[in-house]
Amino acid sequence: MKTVYVTRRERFNAAHKLWNPQWDEATNLKTFGKCANPNWHGHNYDLFVTVKGEPEEDTGYCIDLKYMSDIIEEHVLSKMDHRNLNLDVPFLEGKMTSCEVVVIAIWEQLEPFLTNGKHQLHSIKLYETENNIVEYFGGN
Amino acid sequence: MKTVYVTRRERFNAAHKLWNPQWDEATNLKTFGKCANPNWHGHNYDLFVTVKGEPEEDTGYCIDLKYMSDIIEEHVLSKMDHRNLNLDVPFLEGKMTSCEVVVIAIWEQLEPFLTNGKHQLHSIKLYETENNIVEYFGGN
Amino acid sequence: MKTVYVTRRERFNAAHKLWNPQWDEATNLKTFGKCANPNWHGHNYDLFVTVKGEPEEDTGYCIDLKYMSDIIEEHVLSKMDHRNLNLDVPFLEGKMTSCEVVVIAIWEQLEPFLTNGKHQLHSIKLYETENNIVEYFGGN
Amino acid sequence: MKTVYVTRRERFNAAHKLWNPQWDEATNLKTFGKCANPNWHGHNYDLFVTVKGEPEEDTGYCIDLKYMSDIIEEHVLSKMDHRNLNLDVPFLEGKMTSCEVVVIAIWEQLEPFLTNGKHQLHSIKLYETENNIVEYFGGN
Amino acid sequence: MKTVYVTRRERFNAAHKLWNPQWDEATNLKTFGKCANPNWHGHNYDLFVTVKGEPEEDTGYCIDLKYMSDIIEEHVLSKMDHRNLNLDVPFLEGKMTSCEVVVIAIWEQLEPFLTNGKHQLHSIKLYETENNIVEYFGGN
Amino acid sequence: MKTVYVTRRERFNAAHKLWNPQWDEATNLKTFGKCANPNWHGHNYDLFVTVKGEPEEDTGYCIDLKYMSDIIEEHVLSKMDHRNLNLDVPFLEGKMTSCEVVVIAIWEQLEPFLTNGKHQLHSIKLYETENNIVEYFGGN
Repeated sequence: MKTVYVTRRERFNAAHKLWNPQWDEATNLKTFGKCANPNWHGHNYDLFVTVKGEPEEDTGYCIDLKYMSDIIEEHVLSKMDHRNLNLDVPFLEGKMTSCEVVVIAIWEQLEPFLTNGKHQLHSIKLYETENNIVEYFGGN
Repeated sequence: MKTVYVTRRERFNAAHKLWNPQWDEATNLKTFGKCANPNWHGHNYDLFVTVKGEPEEDTGYCIDLKYMSDIIEEHVLSKMDHRNLNLDVPFLEGKMTSCEVVVIAIWEQLEPFLTNGKHQLHSIKLYETENNIVEYFGGN
Repeated sequence: MKTVYVTRRERFNAAHKLWNPQWDEATNLKTFGKCANPNWHGHNYDLFVTVKGEPEEDTGYCIDLKYMSDIIEEHVLSKMDHRNLNLDVPFLEGKMTSCEVVVIAIWEQLEPFLTNGKHQLHSIKLYETENNIVEYFGGN
Repeated sequence: MKTVYVTRRERFNAAHKLWNPQWDEATNLKTFGKCANPNWHGHNYDLFVTVKGEPEEDTGYCIDLKYMSDIIEEHVLSKMDHRNLNLDVPFLEGKMTSCEVVVIAIWEQLEPFLTNGKHQLHSIKLYETENNIVEYFGGN
Repeated sequence: MKTVYVTRRERFNAAHKLWNPQWDEATNLKTFGKCANPNWHGHNYDLFVTVKGEPEEDTGYCIDLKYMSDIIEEHVLSKMDHRNLNLDVPFLEGKMTSCEVVVIAIWEQLEPFLTNGKHQLHSIKLYETENNIVEYFGGN
Repeated sequence: MKTVYVTRRERFNAAHKLWNPQWDEATNLKTFGKCANPNWHGHNYDLFVTVKGEPEEDTGYCIDLKYMSDIIEEHVLSKMDHRNLNLDVPFLEGKMTSCEVVVIAIWEQLEPFLTNGKHQLHSIKLYETENNIVEYFGGN
């Protein structure tokens, strides 16, 4: 078995805030600091999606990166890019928009389309800034 | 005259939207596309501030970069970082928050503190994304 | 006058070789070294196109970066991306494909579409690698 | 056991195309799109080679990075840099030049020289562009 | 179990040399080359610290990145930044200052503060330059 | 005249401190802070050297980047890389090693070799860190 790990980077720009609606404002500000600014802040998110599998004989591909990019566009970017993560994204409704929660949610969006008999989703890595990064390899 | 150009990079994360309040929603969406999302989006902004002048004999400094960083923190970052550029920033009130307008506004914030007999503000360069960049050298 | 400089980064991947058809192989190899490999080599080119002008009152734009990106796509990328610079690009026909010659040719492609009464093409900057960069500001 | 993972980055520039010689042109163009341009395209490849092992007492090294760089130069870069991956590289002869196939081939070139009693080759990671990345950890 | 991996990047600038005090100068220079320059050289080190754990329900955090940054500042950066790794750092006393040894030492500094019932230190990754990188996942 | 600006990036790693020998230790520490650590600190310096001129007809070159790289190696890198800027570099003797002073000194080293009838040295740009940058265009 010659398993390779194929990664596609995509980017999206979004607004969000860290805010627990079950807490009062003081608790939110104490817990999340400037990330709880009621009027939102935002980020350029860098998203790395990794699929693993074996290269096919006739194409040399584990997965067509163009197809992978299209899947990410359809199921993630079209719903998150230039949006408000707290208000606009159906699959984040009722969730905190920390990087940790967001990578798990993106995994769940993509897993049905990137795991099949030939290859499987391996990890979702998200850069919120150049200093803050979260990666998820699926639950177990 | 041995003039050197000293640049300090700083970063801030902010929400904004491109929206002309004198226009209706349809015109805003037609003009600004997804940048007009009513619920905001956001960016990691990379800010490069450049001062020019001659190095001093005893320090080798044109300007102390720590001082320059403090000035940028006090007059720009403390007002823009983790904020909403349309709602939270006094010096952007009533202005569009395009990169073009923002760099001019940042110049006007910093110029009084970074231009004196020894050195002068030379340029403000702002990366909204890795692909979109605006620079301003002052009006004339 | 509050002139701002607006830059759009685009990317293209291309094959090329440095080869003067009026010279024999030995002279080409002596002059251009491994860049003269007859079977070609290639690069990921990073292209930075800068336009200067004043922001408009109602949009805050000097130029719409989406429009600028479309112009670059139509007149440059669609002709250079995933192509052979020596064989496939009409506006490079009969020319050396050094970075110096290529930036001038890109300028000539874009200048008619990015200079008008409101703004003008300011520079073309091309990264052939992270170490080799050429910039052109138009002839004079 | 205090196992560390030591990575050396190297770079090479090469031409290639995705093309299955057993298919006709139409099938190649349909499958590989612009990557099948008959006249080639190219990339700046970023190569990350990782070896794992324990640091030695007297040097603090798991492996001398200068030695590692020399091995990569001798067995990979000298054969791939400024070359055509489809035409010029003996160890890619008759193979597709997708990133997936190329990382496996590079592993096979380097493994005999970077795995011994003290340390072993752990992974080969190849960036074809900033957006397309493939990694290989050896077959099993 | 939905385990996520949270990474914080920090930076420090330091001087060092590779020098085994039990060897004579000739042996040091032969083994370490220019890295053994008696008058030191230095680097901008990029440090990536990764903690793994599950996101908490009420915050969405696996770990507060601000807390993580404070821990790294207190136990690593305050002792290494703008210092000489061979002379100034208590936890490197008597050790070689190769990247391999340094990442293990940083792990030992941080592990007591970043591993508890909720999350645990997963890896320390150190870039000495853009080309030389070492990662450590703890001993076993 | 079709003037192009050709830039070569090179890198060097060095130790230094900011220290005025005519001042006592307290004044040095007060002025330069942690940059005055008596035992030195260090950086990965990124050096961008720019030459301007017109491309030649037969090569397409303004200047051969390989030649430019060799000149920088011979006159700058061989004297600065893996050295102590305060102790080891003849052309910095008796000078402060601030970025401002260093870029001027590098200019003076390179100018005789990179300015002739065909092209001339245009600028020296030095990154001390990703946040601190100095550029020099020659005195006047």
